[in-house]
Amino acid sequence: MESIEIKKKLVEKWFEYLQIQICKEFENLEVNKSGKERKFKKRKWKKKNQYEGGGISYLLSKGSVFDKVGVNKSTVSGKFKKEFRSKILGAGKSGKYWASGISVVAHMKNPKMPALHFNTRFIVTSKEWFGGGMDVTPSFKDKKEKVYVHKRLKQLCLDNKKNYNTYSKWCDKYFYLPHRKEIRGIGGLFFDYETKNWDNNFKFVRNLGLIFLDISKKIIFKKIRTKWSKKNKEQQMYKRGKYVEFNLLYDRGTKFGLNSGGNIESILMSLPPKAKWK
Amino acid sequence: MESIEIKKKLVEKWFEYLQIQICKEFENLEVNKSGKERKFKKRKWKKKNQYEGGGISYLLSKGSVFDKVGVNKSTVSGKFKKEFRSKILGAGKSGKYWASGISVVAHMKNPKMPALHFNTRFIVTSKEWFGGGMDVTPSFKDKKEKVYVHKRLKQLCLDNKKNYNTYSKWCDKYFYLPHRKEIRGIGGLFFDYETKNWDNNFKFVRNLGLIFLDISKKIIFKKIRTKWSKKNKEQQMYKRGKYVEFNLLYDRGTKFGLNSGGNIESILMSLPPKAKWK
Repeated sequence: MESIEIKKKLVEKWFEYLQIQICKEFENLEVNKSGKERKFKKRKWKKKNQYEGGGISYLLSKGSVFDKVGVNKSTVSGKFKKEFRSKILGAGKSGKYWASGISVVAHMKNPKMPALHFNTRFIVTSKEWFGGGMDVTPSFKDKKEKVYVHKRLKQLCLDNKKNYNTYSKWCDKYFYLPHRKEIRGIGGLFFDYETKNWDNNFKFVRNLGLIFLDISKKIIFKKIRTKWSKKNKEQQMYKRGKYVEFNLLYDRGTKFGLNSGGNIESILMSLPPKAKWK
Repeated sequence: MESIEIKKKLVEKWFEYLQIQICKEFENLEVNKSGKERKFKKRKWKKKNQYEGGGISYLLSKGSVFDKVGVNKSTVSGKFKKEFRSKILGAGKSGKYWASGISVVAHMKNPKMPALHFNTRFIVTSKEWFGGGMDVTPSFKDKKEKVYVHKRLKQLCLDNKKNYNTYSKWCDKYFYLPHRKEIRGIGGLFFDYETKNWDNNFKFVRNLGLIFLDISKKIIFKKIRTKWSKKNKEQQMYKRGKYVEFNLLYDRGTKFGLNSGGNIESILMSLPPKAKWK
């Protein structure tokens, strides 16, 4: 087996593990909150050409903590259409790619809790690189929460010899709605095209996944008894409208998914269960 | 005054007239249904560089017929960014453009009534052309309604020496969600790049506007007393989710607006007040 094949296998297995871990702990939060079990629904899908891979989606909706949370893992390969090749690093000549990734989007029932997003991926064209990040989108300002999230992420970067400033600025730049001239939430980390030092990058990607899970649990625990009103919920709905705008107008993951024959239900699992516009 | 300047003036004045006419008649429908007056709110906006034009938006929401209906008119000019030029007919060299258009999107309170969309525009680069169309998006099948709409549109095309088959197929192709492999509604007419025979095209554009208004009124009158359930409303919400997907992922008008420094509230006025995803 070539070295790249080993890397692919390692990454995919890690994403599979992390997916189950996150689902398990999110299910525990549901029990903890309401005393009731609320399980993720698992769904497998394959690309039209089944030799080009597929994915596994886990979806939990109408919970007492989560209005809707999707945890997706997919591993796909194939050839990009000509129009799309110039937009992908290293895909220029043959258009061939292999990609594996995990992504999580959580839309909370309690509007005082922020929406949580996490994604990591490993992409192989004529180049190979990691990308991903996590970001937090509250509907209501909470300075303590913001400070906490960034403190944790800064420490993570320090521990992994990554530049927190670069990645957090990248996050603010990436999760930006130019037409509204606003950042989507309170930021986080974002990175892409990490081609050098594979072992260290993979370690960072693994740690980011675990930290995401830990931060999420801390944020949720902190507010699990926080009261909210109908008006708060309404405000969350408008915030979600902007979340929809970002994901459909700008998000690379959405575009990648639609351009690589991904599963539509899984790609659009990031959309909230309900959103409003004025 | 050059001929093109006269054309611009004529077109813009027509759009201004039609905008008022539509708003007036839609307000009448509100009174007719509930006995209560419900007025459009008018809002003017200008581009950052005010010499590059702006628009007038009329919005009526939370009515007894309309959940939300926007009637927008804008007239803008400027230079397209380099990346966008290759995508616009005749904009290749200088990137200069002038454009005026009217658009209407109506999201109905009664889920048995379809969403209604209409747009016409006149664009001037190194070329000049009309484009636009109208289409109807029901949440529930209604064969009679579909037959009626297409009969009217076919007659319109006949009267204006336009090819109904070409335009209605174009509509089905344009209002198509590739990721879901479905047409957004029951179609209608769509056309673009109509560069030849200006007088006839302008006449067709005018007639299409009036026919849209007439068809809309007929559709609404027909169902103004039709009962509906909570479940029907729920189904409409999911249909609207797809409407949002189309407008943000694919619509040329949205992209044109965002790329020409248009007013964000007016561009996104096409979005429903509320939508759902599974």
